[in-house]
Amino acid sequence: MRAEIISIGTEILLGEITDTNASFIASQLPQYGIDLLYVSQVGDNPARLEEVLRRAWERSDVTFATGGLGPTEDDLTRETIAKVLGEALEIDEEQERVVRAFFSRPGASGNMPERNLKQAMLIPSARAVPNPRGTAPGWWVEREGRVIAVMPGPPQEMTRMWQHEIAPELERRSDSILVSRTLKTTGLGEGTVDEMLSPLLSSVNPSIGIYARADGVHARISAKSPTREEAWDLIHPLEERAREILGPSVWGIDDDTLPAAVGRMLRDQGLTLALMESATGGSIASAITDYDGSSDYFKGSLVTYATEAKIELGVPAEIITMHGAISKETAEAMAEAARTHLHADLGIGITGIAGGTEVEDQPPGTMHIALADGSGIEYSHSRYYQGREAAKRRAVLQALSLLRRYLMSRAAGDVP
Amino acid sequence: MRAEIISIGTEILLGEITDTNASFIASQLPQYGIDLLYVSQVGDNPARLEEVLRRAWERSDVTFATGGLGPTEDDLTRETIAKVLGEALEIDEEQERVVRAFFSRPGASGNMPERNLKQAMLIPSARAVPNPRGTAPGWWVEREGRVIAVMPGPPQEMTRMWQHEIAPELERRSDSILVSRTLKTTGLGEGTVDEMLSPLLSSVNPSIGIYARADGVHARISAKSPTREEAWDLIHPLEERAREILGPSVWGIDDDTLPAAVGRMLRDQGLTLALMESATGGSIASAITDYDGSSDYFKGSLVTYATEAKIELGVPAEIITMHGAISKETAEAMAEAARTHLHADLGIGITGIAGGTEVEDQPPGTMHIALADGSGIEYSHSRYYQGREAAKRRAVLQALSLLRRYLMSRAAGDVP
Repeated sequence: MRAEIISIGTEILLGEITDTNASFIASQLPQYGIDLLYVSQVGDNPARLEEVLRRAWERSDVTFATGGLGPTEDDLTRETIAKVLGEALEIDEEQERVVRAFFSRPGASGNMPERNLKQAMLIPSARAVPNPRGTAPGWWVEREGRVIAVMPGPPQEMTRMWQHEIAPELERRSDSILVSRTLKTTGLGEGTVDEMLSPLLSSVNPSIGIYARADGVHARISAKSPTREEAWDLIHPLEERAREILGPSVWGIDDDTLPAAVGRMLRDQGLTLALMESATGGSIASAITDYDGSSDYFKGSLVTYATEAKIELGVPAEIITMHGAISKETAEAMAEAARTHLHADLGIGITGIAGGTEVEDQPPGTMHIALADGSGIEYSHSRYYQGREAAKRRAVLQALSLLRRYLMSRAAGDVP
Repeated sequence: MRAEIISIGTEILLGEITDTNASFIASQLPQYGIDLLYVSQVGDNPARLEEVLRRAWERSDVTFATGGLGPTEDDLTRETIAKVLGEALEIDEEQERVVRAFFSRPGASGNMPERNLKQAMLIPSARAVPNPRGTAPGWWVEREGRVIAVMPGPPQEMTRMWQHEIAPELERRSDSILVSRTLKTTGLGEGTVDEMLSPLLSSVNPSIGIYARADGVHARISAKSPTREEAWDLIHPLEERAREILGPSVWGIDDDTLPAAVGRMLRDQGLTLALMESATGGSIASAITDYDGSSDYFKGSLVTYATEAKIELGVPAEIITMHGAISKETAEAMAEAARTHLHADLGIGITGIAGGTEVEDQPPGTMHIALADGSGIEYSHSRYYQGREAAKRRAVLQALSLLRRYLMSRAAGDVP
């Protein structure tokens, strides 16, 4: 099946917004065996919109269009599709009720502006697609075996409609479903994972691919089958073998994040965590608390940007004098101080250089990370510089990886 | 001048990358008076790439193409343009030297793989555009008054080439330059700014537009003129009038960020800052330390996620017992504790609910923010919920706005 995507809206052509709808839809299509051949963005201009929609209707089996469904005169998607298909727009009574109801919901104004009535219009080949997050229903247009699926432009309305309405429809019609399972690893390079999994790499369906990502190397296992269940039946044995080979390097699957994975482990092991952060400036704490429920195990973070703040909060001044503020020893003392000060089972200390200039003879990007549990210390360090924000981001992942490794060993009984 | 953008690469159609090149180029074109009419993405497929490039050559005065300039067989941009224009590809000796030199630079392998030779190819209508960040030169194709500007796909190579090569060329050819100055405000609603600036809104060149953004309401003043200097001469008087009207609500211009603006004020006033953060989980500290040089005025943040951590670090237990952990009084005590504990001139305390459930009878999104300077307290609170990350992001801006307002008053002598 040949598909194309059309994103509609002058604000895209002015560069005021980046078209994330197209990349979202593009990423979803492979699982239904749909080949995406073209993507275009076009403004709220009747002639050009018609040109683009007409070409899509002629050359593609299915077209996904987003935007231009609002109530204003600039919103031309319905009118233009009606013109391209040579069909008449009419107000649909049921849709009129739906649109009016949206204005009567709790907290809304109660009165529907008359111009919103056009959002209740349909053509004979179109059926309305529910949009509980906004006034504009989508359209599912189908004629002569070809389809145009029209969704609203705001990403939160579009993705909701995709997941609840468009995707299930594509799945029903698809004779082959592609399912993927991603195993996320840490501590291994791309080449190493490739080598470890080499006995599995010749498999065709399911197939396996290796990808280097910001949070580690991912192994993606994909299978195609007439049904989702059969595809999973193909994936599971290969997944099991890959898990055996990769062992404890796998920290999560699919949409899992490292803060969530580490949080689950802390909760399972009944441990609490505290941090003392310098170079990362609170961003490890911020990442940990992005995960709902983190208050169960996260006590807090002492963001000691100034050296005197480190000392004030329990880092012995003589350690800083002797070894420097950016040192293994200071990171260790910070970990211990965080633990003690915030009464946590585990403390992590991190000191380094996020900025672009050398400090204490150490290059930009230097990070010293230590973990203390009251009886021992784990330590990790790195020197890698691609700018301030990348240095912080990388240090967050590194600290969480160190913590994860520790929790793995502990679960395996390797930590007393 | 009618323009279009074509982004080339199968990874875009697979949704593996979002096409940020197109939105970057789109955002740059208005200043040269270039109307962008179409954007398309196409994969590494010879027939479809030819179709898209041929249509662009026929309908657009200038086409900006990115991607497909690599050394592999999948990289087809040069070959396809040659075919569309009916011209022959030939190796350019000068370009061959440039590409070979890239492989001889310090740290490189020394030997150019033979397949990279195709990156030294030109057609008679094309000249090579330097690309110091990669092996692939761009192409500036010009014939019959029409232009195709071809840039590499990797964003860091593309934007460098844009800024140093493509933009100056467009500026030379443009008979009218559009220049903009954005004034960023805080503490005022979109309607208020609109009303305040209404005496200026009828101005046509320069014109002024009002935009609600995440970090406050922006007023953008734009002027068109044959030269950049003349455009600025048009902008300056209107900018001065707008600044007079908006007064101290303007916190920055153009690419300025609130943490940077507040940081400059702290440094100018010789003040230091410390935080105690609960609901924001360290993200205010992280935003402040994203700004280089923040160690001059930022002492640190006590991220007291757990109630016991608040008490441990100086919030009186009876305040929490009497008023609750999520209260004005606790925020004030946190501000004072941060100040005292980290020996800073100013302390900010923030407590609230970032998660989606009610706590202590207060709705999700509740944020209490207090600022203490040793003699008085400023306070701000809000209740607004659009999910966990939005609540944190919004609270960061709110805290920085509170701090900015305080520093403004202080500079004006309103604070003792």
